[in-house]
Amino acid sequence: MAYTVKQIADAIGADHFGDGSLVVSGVSEPAQATERDIALAMKPDYAQHIVTGAAKVAFLWPDADWQSFGLKAAIIARRPRYALAGLSAMLDRGQAYPQGIHPTAFVDQAAAIGKNVSIGAFACIAAGAVIGDDCVIGPQCYVGVNSTLGAHSLLREGVKIGADVRIGAHFIAQPSAIIGGDGFSFVTPELSAVEKVRETLGDQGDIATQSWARIHSLGGVDIGENVEVGANTCIDRGSVRPTKIGNGVKIDNLTQIGHNVIIGNDCLICAQVGIAGSTRIGNNVVLGGQTGVSDNVFIGDNVITGGATKVLSNIPAGRVMLGYPAMKMETHIEIYKSLRKLPRLLRDVTKLQKAIFNTDKND
Amino acid sequence: MAYTVKQIADAIGADHFGDGSLVVSGVSEPAQATERDIALAMKPDYAQHIVTGAAKVAFLWPDADWQSFGLKAAIIARRPRYALAGLSAMLDRGQAYPQGIHPTAFVDQAAAIGKNVSIGAFACIAAGAVIGDDCVIGPQCYVGVNSTLGAHSLLREGVKIGADVRIGAHFIAQPSAIIGGDGFSFVTPELSAVEKVRETLGDQGDIATQSWARIHSLGGVDIGENVEVGANTCIDRGSVRPTKIGNGVKIDNLTQIGHNVIIGNDCLICAQVGIAGSTRIGNNVVLGGQTGVSDNVFIGDNVITGGATKVLSNIPAGRVMLGYPAMKMETHIEIYKSLRKLPRLLRDVTKLQKAIFNTDKND
Amino acid sequence: MAYTVKQIADAIGADHFGDGSLVVSGVSEPAQATERDIALAMKPDYAQHIVTGAAKVAFLWPDADWQSFGLKAAIIARRPRYALAGLSAMLDRGQAYPQGIHPTAFVDQAAAIGKNVSIGAFACIAAGAVIGDDCVIGPQCYVGVNSTLGAHSLLREGVKIGADVRIGAHFIAQPSAIIGGDGFSFVTPELSAVEKVRETLGDQGDIATQSWARIHSLGGVDIGENVEVGANTCIDRGSVRPTKIGNGVKIDNLTQIGHNVIIGNDCLICAQVGIAGSTRIGNNVVLGGQTGVSDNVFIGDNVITGGATKVLSNIPAGRVMLGYPAMKMETHIEIYKSLRKLPRLLRDVTKLQKAIFNTDKND
Repeated sequence: MAYTVKQIADAIGADHFGDGSLVVSGVSEPAQATERDIALAMKPDYAQHIVTGAAKVAFLWPDADWQSFGLKAAIIARRPRYALAGLSAMLDRGQAYPQGIHPTAFVDQAAAIGKNVSIGAFACIAAGAVIGDDCVIGPQCYVGVNSTLGAHSLLREGVKIGADVRIGAHFIAQPSAIIGGDGFSFVTPELSAVEKVRETLGDQGDIATQSWARIHSLGGVDIGENVEVGANTCIDRGSVRPTKIGNGVKIDNLTQIGHNVIIGNDCLICAQVGIAGSTRIGNNVVLGGQTGVSDNVFIGDNVITGGATKVLSNIPAGRVMLGYPAMKMETHIEIYKSLRKLPRLLRDVTKLQKAIFNTDKND
Repeated sequence: MAYTVKQIADAIGADHFGDGSLVVSGVSEPAQATERDIALAMKPDYAQHIVTGAAKVAFLWPDADWQSFGLKAAIIARRPRYALAGLSAMLDRGQAYPQGIHPTAFVDQAAAIGKNVSIGAFACIAAGAVIGDDCVIGPQCYVGVNSTLGAHSLLREGVKIGADVRIGAHFIAQPSAIIGGDGFSFVTPELSAVEKVRETLGDQGDIATQSWARIHSLGGVDIGENVEVGANTCIDRGSVRPTKIGNGVKIDNLTQIGHNVIIGNDCLICAQVGIAGSTRIGNNVVLGGQTGVSDNVFIGDNVITGGATKVLSNIPAGRVMLGYPAMKMETHIEIYKSLRKLPRLLRDVTKLQKAIFNTDKND
Repeated sequence: MAYTVKQIADAIGADHFGDGSLVVSGVSEPAQATERDIALAMKPDYAQHIVTGAAKVAFLWPDADWQSFGLKAAIIARRPRYALAGLSAMLDRGQAYPQGIHPTAFVDQAAAIGKNVSIGAFACIAAGAVIGDDCVIGPQCYVGVNSTLGAHSLLREGVKIGADVRIGAHFIAQPSAIIGGDGFSFVTPELSAVEKVRETLGDQGDIATQSWARIHSLGGVDIGENVEVGANTCIDRGSVRPTKIGNGVKIDNLTQIGHNVIIGNDCLICAQVGIAGSTRIGNNVVLGGQTGVSDNVFIGDNVITGGATKVLSNIPAGRVMLGYPAMKMETHIEIYKSLRKLPRLLRDVTKLQKAIFNTDKND
């Protein structure tokens, strides 16, 4: 893939300066750039290395004095990071899987395969599966019975989609993502210690030894359009109705989405997040990496959690949260600062007690 | 699968009322129910929507006035959630993998396959593997050399079982579960900084740059009967003796069970839990999601940990724990409440100091 | 594999005593040892069970009085745990995958396969992939377009290596490790709430509903020599330049290494660690299990983090850290002890206030 500077600027809605006919085929950090690369220097800090590299073209921040770096051309966007999305899409060579249905793939006769679909080596498409037009299914993938994959979707190598999963168009799944594992739902013959603890906040009462009976997952998974799911991420089936992921949701690697969870639109769920069963997440929510969310809670629209926040109860819309248990970020920062003064505070109070009561605190 | 109301009630040990001959083939939330569904309303809160849906039969809580909802029949169980286990098992259509050994599967001549076994597309059964009767092995699974899988087991798509693993009957593994990865055990030629820190609680002493030598895993994995393992969960081989999982243990997705770990019977291990090497867990233990347990510690019978509890030392039997580091749940709640008062407490003490010592605290 | 006592002692640099011609073929805990096993008793605590088992040879701690246990021979090393690395390597039977290229494997004609390479059932080697000499590639693995795997490497079952990955010699990947998933990098058309929160530490300002645009990953992954990667661990591609893992790095299961991360040499990264995008880690760093590291931070050489440490900002070289947010371990321990006194402290201060101001604190 090679483009002129003008082609790129036009495609991504940016301005170009200098020689728009220069041809480039890649991007690079400034110091490592070859003559065929666009040097990326979206902030002034990175610009000093442009002269070290061999780039003739750079992608610069608004108002950059591009000619001062000895360049022949420049591309400048109002919001460089957003323009980078378009630029990186143009230059992405992807995984270059072979086109068409690989001779080693197995496609059940009762599967429906759209137009212009590629299916990789050792992939298996089960009976009743429906694959939309222009999908790319990587090697060693599985699409289960009665599942639907929307048009223009990409499954990277080893993705497993179980039975009864419906996925909208423009879906991307990173390697070995799992959609449609059974929910983790077990029950004891009599009231369990966990149920008692939830009622009493800590007392499990008389402990009876019991085994766990399995509640089977009869619901599937429904996923909207433009969703991306990370490598080794798991989205479980619902118990009775489907687990639901809205449109435009982006989920990173190694994330757990439990049974019956409902996630709204345009959420960003970072790596290693865990969302327990039956929890509901609003729209435009951002959950930082390693965030944990208890079962059966509600997180309102536009909530943001910092890294490793542990959500044990509902969060109203618009809150920014941090900590374990989750608190408002400003509260968390205030408490954290106070905490560092706590050992001294203990000593100060002992002094006060001595001064007032003329006694030592004895513990 | 279709059943009469009477067949279902009898099978799950519940009572039925009204027309026991009505035929149903699914369950549904009340509002979405069709005429062929049982509406699930196990609590009075959910009953209001029965009339919105089309169900003729509902599954209700004890003492529900079933006729008041315009139903033709009802199923009522003393402990509805437990009865749901049986009901969901009856109605589960599962993954509907094709029966028999798939033509694309590879079964080594030196593997022993029981009666009535199904093996999916591109699955591989290695030499010396023993597969019990009535097992279902999903597509793209692997069962390694000299490993044994008990009768009536189900491996979902992509499960990997390495060499030297013994698994009891009625095992269920969710997609891409990994049994028998090598343990993570490394050693430096001389005492490492980590070993020094463990002795001194914080001082790593003189730092010598060292590389890590691998301690190979020679033990396998032993898993009891009626165990379930979640999607992408990993259970590592032992170093010298097997890693052991007792009977009736249920493990959720993305969980890490390190080498040499011993887990008792009937434990419930929720998603993203990590149990480090050589730790021992008693019977009937429940570990909440994202719980972490250090290596070489002991957790007694009937311990329960709340979500994201980080266990850094032993826990006696029967405790309910929460927090990082783990404390008794009631202690954690008390400290957490106090913590929110800490910034004000600091200000109060400053005022006291001023009143007593007539000085400002200067920091 | 069977060896004489003398062969083993010589190979691992240990001393042997007694009958060096005795033949052994395995190791065991003392009580379970057969006549063909070496009983492992590297500390005096474990020695009492030697007489219970049938071992004629034991592997003992320095200065052990080996004859007092009724043994015919003993192996004694100055640092037993380090010697165990060599011993376990000699006795490891591994996965015993069949040798050579399995008839069901698919190797693209445009792949370059070294000498003495084994490739397992249903494995796929893509065009342009280069596999070094003496590699073992397990069943159901994938090696992508233009990726290189160094000599003497082992991929366990189901490992997925995407396009544009370069890996040095002596690499080991546990089952279903993922190298080269796309980075998790998204951007909104206008400034996002997350960007505002980072600037203001908590205030997300006016909330505008926006969707996420994808920044494609154009960099690959570069991995040094002697690296091990755990089961289901994910290492993402870089955005513009490769994500980099140094020599001798050992990574445990279910770990997330984000795009653009740079890890130095000889680091030990335990299970379920998450390292967010563009973070740099020095040499000889040890990250305890479930450690989380924010994006764009720097961790100096020889840093050690305890289990579940959450690193939200830079850490200078040599520090030992614990907690959320991460603090020096000694600070964390001091604060934790103070914390347990906090509820009482609140009551003490109330008493002081009453004594001084003659008022009750009213909240």
